[in-house]
Amino acid sequence: MAAAATTADAHSTSRTSSPSAAASASSLPAFDLNKYLLDKKDAVESALDASLQVTSPQVAKITESMRYSLLAGGKRIRPIMCIAACEMAGGTAEDAMAAAVALEMIHTMSLIHDDLPSMDNDSLRRGKPTNHVIYGEDVAILAGDALLSTAFEHVAKHTPSHVPAERVVSVIARLAASVGATGLAGGQVMDLECEGKEGVGLEELTWIHTHKTAALLKVSVAAGAILGGASAEEVEACETYALDIGLAFQVADDILDVTASTEALGKTAGKDLNMDKTTYPKLLGLEGSREEARRLVGEAKAALGRFGGRAAPLLAIADYIVERKN
Amino acid sequence: MAAAATTADAHSTSRTSSPSAAASASSLPAFDLNKYLLDKKDAVESALDASLQVTSPQVAKITESMRYSLLAGGKRIRPIMCIAACEMAGGTAEDAMAAAVALEMIHTMSLIHDDLPSMDNDSLRRGKPTNHVIYGEDVAILAGDALLSTAFEHVAKHTPSHVPAERVVSVIARLAASVGATGLAGGQVMDLECEGKEGVGLEELTWIHTHKTAALLKVSVAAGAILGGASAEEVEACETYALDIGLAFQVADDILDVTASTEALGKTAGKDLNMDKTTYPKLLGLEGSREEARRLVGEAKAALGRFGGRAAPLLAIADYIVERKN
Repeated sequence: MAAAATTADAHSTSRTSSPSAAASASSLPAFDLNKYLLDKKDAVESALDASLQVTSPQVAKITESMRYSLLAGGKRIRPIMCIAACEMAGGTAEDAMAAAVALEMIHTMSLIHDDLPSMDNDSLRRGKPTNHVIYGEDVAILAGDALLSTAFEHVAKHTPSHVPAERVVSVIARLAASVGATGLAGGQVMDLECEGKEGVGLEELTWIHTHKTAALLKVSVAAGAILGGASAEEVEACETYALDIGLAFQVADDILDVTASTEALGKTAGKDLNMDKTTYPKLLGLEGSREEARRLVGEAKAALGRFGGRAAPLLAIADYIVERKN
Repeated sequence: MAAAATTADAHSTSRTSSPSAAASASSLPAFDLNKYLLDKKDAVESALDASLQVTSPQVAKITESMRYSLLAGGKRIRPIMCIAACEMAGGTAEDAMAAAVALEMIHTMSLIHDDLPSMDNDSLRRGKPTNHVIYGEDVAILAGDALLSTAFEHVAKHTPSHVPAERVVSVIARLAASVGATGLAGGQVMDLECEGKEGVGLEELTWIHTHKTAALLKVSVAAGAILGGASAEEVEACETYALDIGLAFQVADDILDVTASTEALGKTAGKDLNMDKTTYPKLLGLEGSREEARRLVGEAKAALGRFGGRAAPLLAIADYIVERKN
């Protein structure tokens, strides 16, 4: 996906142009986001591939189904943000890698289940047939269940032993909360309830996306920070950043759904409009939505001021999220 | 918390009639299993009810759906075995209660998902309409997902703080493994694959039930033992006990499916035979199945010899499992 390091440094610097980011950028070599994302993505892909192996003929089918969706590509933005937060807080990429893998397992589970015939009924995801199209609805549901539980198993078993167990327990509690009634699952139920409904307002839409999208980004950054040894106040600052970025991500997604082609998106474009879904462009217009995304990103970046130059990757990612083209 | 001795002693003693149990029973007041199960079930029901509350109007629907199935009754045998193992290992019921609640959440999730139209397509469970019949397939899938993740959240957040975090991490790793590709989900995929298939043998059937049923009983007892401070060898003995009991439980279930009425069972009796499912009675005959159940229970009880009289509840539960009428 992202290109190797180029002379695009000036561009990268201009991307992190909020006051706090500019201050740190001036005292540091310019940050090359493309190279950073590429390096981290490689490491994450290797860890994902290693995390699920067929260990006996009896588990071949379910494991293949889990691997099909887990290794189907994607930007791996949640794992990368988890690692970035861990390094920002003083830890290493290895300290956060098990949690990073878990985040992608959880995210993948939510995609498999959301695509099911009884939910969004999507047959195309990242340019490939969805899990239930290939493996059947029954196996797709079970593969999602297995990915969800394996996420917690992975964090519990594969976080390096020098990381205090209290931090692992805290990360698991937050990961789990991001999926439950006040997380992904609750957000999706509200989303389904609002489909085709008249008069869904900005507050309701924000609630849905805070729970359906932002909750997992929030725990991505918080988990990394906790594993890296962040203080309670630092974790809170990370959460403010992530919640804002999560909402900005959803606004950008809604904008892309209107403006991008099906080919560039790898999923059916315009689907939300067709399905009478309430979206930010519908409520705020295209330009109003772009403005809202920029406002959220500005607020997100300000929250990381206390981390100085160590925040460079997360600051650059904030800009990347609203400027992405697919 | 264990019950006081009552006049039902003679009956209870006859239930724990294996050599090791008889030896310990002779040096202790006879064990009243009925009172024990009733007391523990009350405590578990209260904890289950408190574990899921509607915290905002937005989460009302998913929370109600989760509560509908979680609080639908049942013997609560997994939570009770978890608590019994914790007390046997030297801990208290409170030390194990969060894990006990999590076990029932996981078990409930597996029932909701297994009942779905694309799986076993059951419309009746414990004498009540299944979750998807009441809430729709989409909400039922999401309620299962939320129950599964809330299980881990509950253990991580509500295990008493005096229990070392390392034990909590170990319990979460085992709980999670019991659901994944080599647990419930993997067992269910194999089960679906074997449905209607000719020539499914005892080995394949045992694999399915080891993963689909015994895995969760195994972690029930192991989790309790770990939280109670058991040594690695003690945990292993508990696992041997639980695996045998888990298989015995399934054999007894298959026998009940043939012999019990739909009313007594609270689910559609004879369904497995109708669906051309391979069952123990089919492979071994009714009497052969009863013999296999007795053999497994004997082996299970022998594994707990090292715990002496403190094993009384788990020894009595072993007998109860194969002698139950529904």
